[in-house]
Amino acid sequence: MEPLDSQVGFLLEADRLKTVLRQTTLTDRSRRENSAEHSWHLALMALVLAEHAPPGTDLGRVMAMVVLHDLVEIDAGDLFVYAAQAEQARQERAERAAADRLFALLPPAQASSFRALWDEFEERATVEAKFARALDRLEPMLINMVTEGGTWAAHGVTADQVLTRVALIEDGPVVGRLRPHHGRERDRPRPPRTAPGGVTATYHGSVSPGLTRTGTERT
Amino acid sequence: MEPLDSQVGFLLEADRLKTVLRQTTLTDRSRRENSAEHSWHLALMALVLAEHAPPGTDLGRVMAMVVLHDLVEIDAGDLFVYAAQAEQARQERAERAAADRLFALLPPAQASSFRALWDEFEERATVEAKFARALDRLEPMLINMVTEGGTWAAHGVTADQVLTRVALIEDGPVVGRLRPHHGRERDRPRPPRTAPGGVTATYHGSVSPGLTRTGTERT
Repeated sequence: MEPLDSQVGFLLEADRLKTVLRQTTLTDRSRRENSAEHSWHLALMALVLAEHAPPGTDLGRVMAMVVLHDLVEIDAGDLFVYAAQAEQARQERAERAAADRLFALLPPAQASSFRALWDEFEERATVEAKFARALDRLEPMLINMVTEGGTWAAHGVTADQVLTRVALIEDGPVVGRLRPHHGRERDRPRPPRTAPGGVTATYHGSVSPGLTRTGTERT
Repeated sequence: MEPLDSQVGFLLEADRLKTVLRQTTLTDRSRRENSAEHSWHLALMALVLAEHAPPGTDLGRVMAMVVLHDLVEIDAGDLFVYAAQAEQARQERAERAAADRLFALLPPAQASSFRALWDEFEERATVEAKFARALDRLEPMLINMVTEGGTWAAHGVTADQVLTRVALIEDGPVVGRLRPHHGRERDRPRPPRTAPGGVTATYHGSVSPGLTRTGTERT
């Protein structure tokens, strides 16, 4: 098969990521988010938050990682980040098998380099992988922030569970500046929104949670 | 407002792109595609088809352009690429106004640089913009290829209309190798799929249009 044929086959197969649903809803709560549009949001976050990445971070590699990172869900589906340990282990095996199958659709050299990027993201060993994974953790938190703890409330996720997951963001771009808070809030200009377990789904900033709804309405 | 506050506000506003629907469906025809997941697909195409871009193309700039290019549809909506001239002109004005509003949500320096990238994409003057715009034109064509002329058939788009639009792809990565054909096919191993007006929604390769449906089914 010619390289271009393999590449087109891979790109058409990738279309299926648009049908994989995540637990998170959109900010307007109209429906659940899918993994393709989530991946786009991460790429946009990488661009917008680039200045908060550690010096020397290669933004192109971060962009490539976030665009590729969820493709394995075409076979393995999306697992809620707060799922039990045994389920997480099963998911990891399923994702590895999916990576074996999907990247092999590409010409060999490209298959290797994409697989290496995916492995790097999973292993979280490099500065680019840490930044990319922090963005992946941060995106649903931003959405939950404006949907009154949306997914956390719906699934009864506790404060401790969220805080464990937040630890990963602290490897990333906005250490200690943008994260959910546990317990009493200080210096807050407006009442925090609270999810079950006492998690306050807000952040140390002044952007109104209603901002997504201002501006010109779509024509 | 602190830079991070503006950036988070912009990122939450951007979430609305997930609700803007395009004419194209997914390859499984289950629903219409939205502009956020379309943008992700373009970023993936940029990565996968990079070797077909002209030498010296800066892939990072291409990725940034395709991630940003449709944000204006949050205010302006998506216009079918085959819409009438007057509608296209109205759309252009609406998109420019949207760019004025949306990028201004960011810190000033970032607003300028993102707006410049968006303008560059629109003007199609640089090699990166040409590549990005070719991908933007190619993506719905790939999808139509496996949905038996989907959008073209539904809207009665003619061969000449498609060919006019294809001209733009020829500025891009895969000149003359991957495009719909008009009239008689040569050297085709299997019967072409035909949309109204005699457009043959296929390409000069050997990837089966059914490829997206092979492989392991999702668990």
